[in-house]
Amino acid sequence: MKKSLGAKTLTSPTPVWIIGTYDKEGKPNLMTAAWVGICCSQPPCVGVSLRKATYTYGNIVERKAFTVSIPGEARVKECDYIGTATGKNVDKFARLKLTAVKSSIVDAPYVQEFPWVLECRVIHTIEIGLHTEFVGEIMDVKVDSSVVNSRGLPDVGKIRPFLFDPANGTYYGVGADLGHAFSTGKSTR
Amino acid sequence: MKKSLGAKTLTSPTPVWIIGTYDKEGKPNLMTAAWVGICCSQPPCVGVSLRKATYTYGNIVERKAFTVSIPGEARVKECDYIGTATGKNVDKFARLKLTAVKSSIVDAPYVQEFPWVLECRVIHTIEIGLHTEFVGEIMDVKVDSSVVNSRGLPDVGKIRPFLFDPANGTYYGVGADLGHAFSTGKSTR
Repeated sequence: MKKSLGAKTLTSPTPVWIIGTYDKEGKPNLMTAAWVGICCSQPPCVGVSLRKATYTYGNIVERKAFTVSIPGEARVKECDYIGTATGKNVDKFARLKLTAVKSSIVDAPYVQEFPWVLECRVIHTIEIGLHTEFVGEIMDVKVDSSVVNSRGLPDVGKIRPFLFDPANGTYYGVGADLGHAFSTGKSTR
Repeated sequence: MKKSLGAKTLTSPTPVWIIGTYDKEGKPNLMTAAWVGICCSQPPCVGVSLRKATYTYGNIVERKAFTVSIPGEARVKECDYIGTATGKNVDKFARLKLTAVKSSIVDAPYVQEFPWVLECRVIHTIEIGLHTEFVGEIMDVKVDSSVVNSRGLPDVGKIRPFLFDPANGTYYGVGADLGHAFSTGKSTR
């Protein structure tokens, strides 16, 4: 028997991405975002939804670019802090002793200490309501050499990205390998 | 040292959502989608990106509605199958012995056997490239009573939603609890 919980953003889990931008004066900023996801394969794009009240919103409107730094679970505390402080008042890179690397491709910085980075230029801006979705074309993906697997791809087991459950406000790690896509379902045929 | 992997949809993990729709004749269909996410809090919305070639694409254009059924990891094989077959040729509900429940709120069916459902009406359609993003306003969320926690919210530990790693084509479970948001970061201040 299903129980109605109302019209709410109850779904789980969501990714934890760290969005890197520059402000008008060139100060690098970070925010934690979970209202995000891949939204197109060709061109490769991600959607990142932000409230206008965030410092990052103004930065993206100004610079038309952002990066996504994907942290490992050892960084959960820093990422939680990034999600609670605002770049209007704090230099989060300095506060957390993180290094801002200027992307050579887009007008935005990324976090040197985080293993996986997407460099994005904004190609669509969609006004939805409280949130504005920025669709960013992925211009390049960069991953630390130490966490690339033998196939040359990011190794989730080494990187250990983590998740956010908005229903209960809890962070979770990535769990057990449940099988390979486009093959595990064959036994149902 | 970061290695450039090119302009690709390399990010991980992504959710595994089962999208429910009706076709012109009222036949219910399912597809597996990972290019998805929450994209607004007010009104509560999700974005679901699909290729025009999918059967679901035509159904959503026709009906302006879809559901998201969130499966538990015990259903990984069925969900992988749903992602490899097409509703043009197969009745996936019948094939997998799943029950299509007609939403009383939107013009789309959901999966009775899956514990968590979002019922959505399309409020924006964004042509990005190979994929079209449908922004669906969440009109209601329904969860099996047996997997709601003491706070009346979906219990991720009981539901055990699972994830897709597009980089390597692997499904993963949800792992360890890493702490509570908006509090675990306090120790960094």
